[in-house]
Amino acid sequence: MSITDRLDAATARVLARAMGGEAPAQLAKALHYAVTPGGARIRPTIMLSVAMACGDDRPALSDAGAVALELIHCASLVHDDLPCFDDADTRRGKATVHKAFSEPLAVLTGDSLIVLAFDILAEAAGNDAKRALQMIRVLSRRTGMPDGICAGQGWESEAEVNLSAYHRAKTGALFIAATQMGALAAGQDCEPWEELGARIGEAFQVADDLRDALYDAEALGKPAGQDEAHGRPNAVSTYGVQGAIRHLKDILGGAIASIPSCPGEAMLADMVRRYAERMTPVAPALNRAKAAR
Amino acid sequence: MSITDRLDAATARVLARAMGGEAPAQLAKALHYAVTPGGARIRPTIMLSVAMACGDDRPALSDAGAVALELIHCASLVHDDLPCFDDADTRRGKATVHKAFSEPLAVLTGDSLIVLAFDILAEAAGNDAKRALQMIRVLSRRTGMPDGICAGQGWESEAEVNLSAYHRAKTGALFIAATQMGALAAGQDCEPWEELGARIGEAFQVADDLRDALYDAEALGKPAGQDEAHGRPNAVSTYGVQGAIRHLKDILGGAIASIPSCPGEAMLADMVRRYAERMTPVAPALNRAKAAR
Repeated sequence: MSITDRLDAATARVLARAMGGEAPAQLAKALHYAVTPGGARIRPTIMLSVAMACGDDRPALSDAGAVALELIHCASLVHDDLPCFDDADTRRGKATVHKAFSEPLAVLTGDSLIVLAFDILAEAAGNDAKRALQMIRVLSRRTGMPDGICAGQGWESEAEVNLSAYHRAKTGALFIAATQMGALAAGQDCEPWEELGARIGEAFQVADDLRDALYDAEALGKPAGQDEAHGRPNAVSTYGVQGAIRHLKDILGGAIASIPSCPGEAMLADMVRRYAERMTPVAPALNRAKAAR
Repeated sequence: MSITDRLDAATARVLARAMGGEAPAQLAKALHYAVTPGGARIRPTIMLSVAMACGDDRPALSDAGAVALELIHCASLVHDDLPCFDDADTRRGKATVHKAFSEPLAVLTGDSLIVLAFDILAEAAGNDAKRALQMIRVLSRRTGMPDGICAGQGWESEAEVNLSAYHRAKTGALFIAATQMGALAAGQDCEPWEELGARIGEAFQVADDLRDALYDAEALGKPAGQDEAHGRPNAVSTYGVQGAIRHLKDILGGAIASIPSCPGEAMLADMVRRYAERMTPVAPALNRAKAAR
């Protein structure tokens, strides 16, 4: 089964349970709306890829970890889109949850998705309680305070921002969770996998900065120029477009070099190279950027 | 050590960790503000009382469960107070989190507290992985969708409300979590403890309805008359004041009768009786209600 098929099947099972029983209908619909159809599902794909590279001897636990990661990511998008944060009307080419449903339902959707992520990890433990508990700890650390994406978002309320802590928490955290949870699901030590996750996260941050600066809202499926509009730190304002692209390539080279020795090492290096191709802005956007100078 | 001292010490340890490292300062302060000084801490007190009644052979796990419950409860208060829900300015006699800090920080505070609750349960597992995982599952079920307090709040967005599902999820859920997690922390089966939690929850709902209808904002430490203002179902509008008080006494009698056989059975019955005394509205409020008719 392909990674996409595994993720689709596992996500559908998890959502069916959360929406079942005597659930309030609107909130149930909002959960489904926030998670499907998925975006690029990069974090769960990386998680499953690392699990497979390490042997993937507990596929149900790997699937649970991958879906848990995606649920946390979706929860963060729903809350980040709220009027009090980005006040975004569109996400992934459709109305944001608070626009399609309501603000109360968007808050509750995020809350419910966070809870569901931990629920499915505990449920999938089976005879591997220790692995599941380690995965829960990695996920909670990289989601909450003081090191997770909540902390990352929290930095945006500070007058003085610790830039490295901000980026590590805001974007890096869930990529570190992805590589570490993949290793843990397959019974491996998670420590050697932190660097790969951190470097992929850093690369995505730079790539996202480039996309935000170079692409329009239609191509992004969400509002463009948000970093500039909100005065947020951005690799393009720091290094310029060409400098940011060079920086991106350096980071990805470092990511490949950091892959721990494992049966699927070459496969993982290919995965990073494929992401690198996808992340580098395409010629039309670069030409527009040149023309605008 | 008294239950209050145990809760104070365990809460302080958990908050210190969440606020440590390179945490953004405002969000760290908001976490502390949302949790301390605590309210009546009824849910964690019930949890620890049940654990002690069952032997409390893993006190660190019991403490983690009690604090996790309180963090989830505090998170729900912070989010329920937001402008898109109750739009409350005060809570426990001080400014609500979004008023004292900001709306973004209130959303993030709730999110971070939810995550922290699961983190500390996983951390406290030690050699009792199975107990910890069962506690995580009970807590997640009673917090999220379709049976938890998120579902309960979600019912308020429905045109037609399933009243029994609404009350069971909105108020009952965390009391069921309290009795069941207490039993689990001490290595007992949690199934026989559901009824006690459900009945205590039902009693608190009726008592809360009475307080909302009879007391003023100063006595409540939060806005009064909220049910009537928001058109929410309320035991006083259904049964009248005296009828609601009789109903409350019946429920508490049933709660005492439902206590499973255990070493601390008599102690738990006393606890319920003490809560019953505290929950029944005092004479001045009843006299005011009579005068107003």
